[in-house]
Amino acid sequence: MSASLRKTGKSTIGRHPERGSYDRAAAHAILDEALVAHVGFDTDDGVVVVPMTYARIDDEIFLHGAAANRWLRSFAEGRDISFCVTLLDGLVLARSAFSHSMNYRSVVAFGRAFTVNDDARKAVAFRALLDHLLPGRWDDCRQPNRKEIDATTVLSLQLDEASVKVRSGPPKDAAKDVALDYWAGVIPLELQAGSPIPDTANAGGDKRAIPSYAGNYARRRL
Amino acid sequence: MSASLRKTGKSTIGRHPERGSYDRAAAHAILDEALVAHVGFDTDDGVVVVPMTYARIDDEIFLHGAAANRWLRSFAEGRDISFCVTLLDGLVLARSAFSHSMNYRSVVAFGRAFTVNDDARKAVAFRALLDHLLPGRWDDCRQPNRKEIDATTVLSLQLDEASVKVRSGPPKDAAKDVALDYWAGVIPLELQAGSPIPDTANAGGDKRAIPSYAGNYARRRL
Repeated sequence: MSASLRKTGKSTIGRHPERGSYDRAAAHAILDEALVAHVGFDTDDGVVVVPMTYARIDDEIFLHGAAANRWLRSFAEGRDISFCVTLLDGLVLARSAFSHSMNYRSVVAFGRAFTVNDDARKAVAFRALLDHLLPGRWDDCRQPNRKEIDATTVLSLQLDEASVKVRSGPPKDAAKDVALDYWAGVIPLELQAGSPIPDTANAGGDKRAIPSYAGNYARRRL
Repeated sequence: MSASLRKTGKSTIGRHPERGSYDRAAAHAILDEALVAHVGFDTDDGVVVVPMTYARIDDEIFLHGAAANRWLRSFAEGRDISFCVTLLDGLVLARSAFSHSMNYRSVVAFGRAFTVNDDARKAVAFRALLDHLLPGRWDDCRQPNRKEIDATTVLSLQLDEASVKVRSGPPKDAAKDVALDYWAGVIPLELQAGSPIPDTANAGGDKRAIPSYAGNYARRRL
């Protein structure tokens, strides 16, 4: 597999090409950190964008989204999608209104997504999806039964025609604006995890300690 | 204006209708809190989804996205878009793999977006876009000049055909799973702002104190 993603008319970065790259490893890192993708595709009613959870194994992206099931049924023979993941890293306050921006890392990918039907591949996808949400969780919950496996739609997309875009660092005011008497800088943003809240559904039995993979989530991942 | 959003075949919630609503005020609150939308539309090359910043005034959504400029040029006569905003509130760990979920608040809207050409409306949109990023900022930076106004594309979308979807609270395991010996609960997630990082481009002059609207960002907004 090439270390570079595939540049096409669609995946080539237009504006701010200096922020773009086609580096597969950079795409992997962003995909592994983000939790939700926004997926767009055409329907009889026009274009629809829905949030979906996903996971990556090498260059295969597995998509799962109950919210989208109405649409997902039509993916059996494959369907072209646009897949976008965005991580927000900061507000960029420049001296001029025009130069305000955000720091972010994003991946945009295009390709045909197919329904995964094979049980063995579906099992691989389920583990990847849960461990993407919270590494270690798959081995510490009840595995899906036959009915649940059949009730879950998983799509597969190859990461190929895609690009990475990253903005980081301070504002970039034009030279003539730098001396203006306005504060300029960056306000960092970060998705942070709070303390786990144990469920109380099992009134007598929920005495189990918070698993380390959950308690350490904030420190390890974000 | 009706207090309810417009339900159509496309905007009606399919899966988990109990999480859905068509309440305009609920949509407004989510739109005002989130910072980035994912916008999908059809192009000659197929469907494209791009992240864009936006702002809301009443039921008008202004979209701005340098990243998308290559595509935005074609909006002069209006173009149907799918607009989606998602806030992540937590990881929901159930005892069964199947019942894992996320807590989130999302708005999905459909409609025709038009380029804003009128200078006065563009000025209104610029102020809204900057104050959405950081309330108070518009009045504390250099306003756009003629060239910058012309170089910025703003789209307008009416919030009408749309829906709100919210999941909150603990996991919902099936009754037979509640007694299983797996930890269950929620790990809250929150986008948090860090301490502002002053720009150092103006080596002699960046002595200005961090404005209160920036320093208080974390506490006021998130």
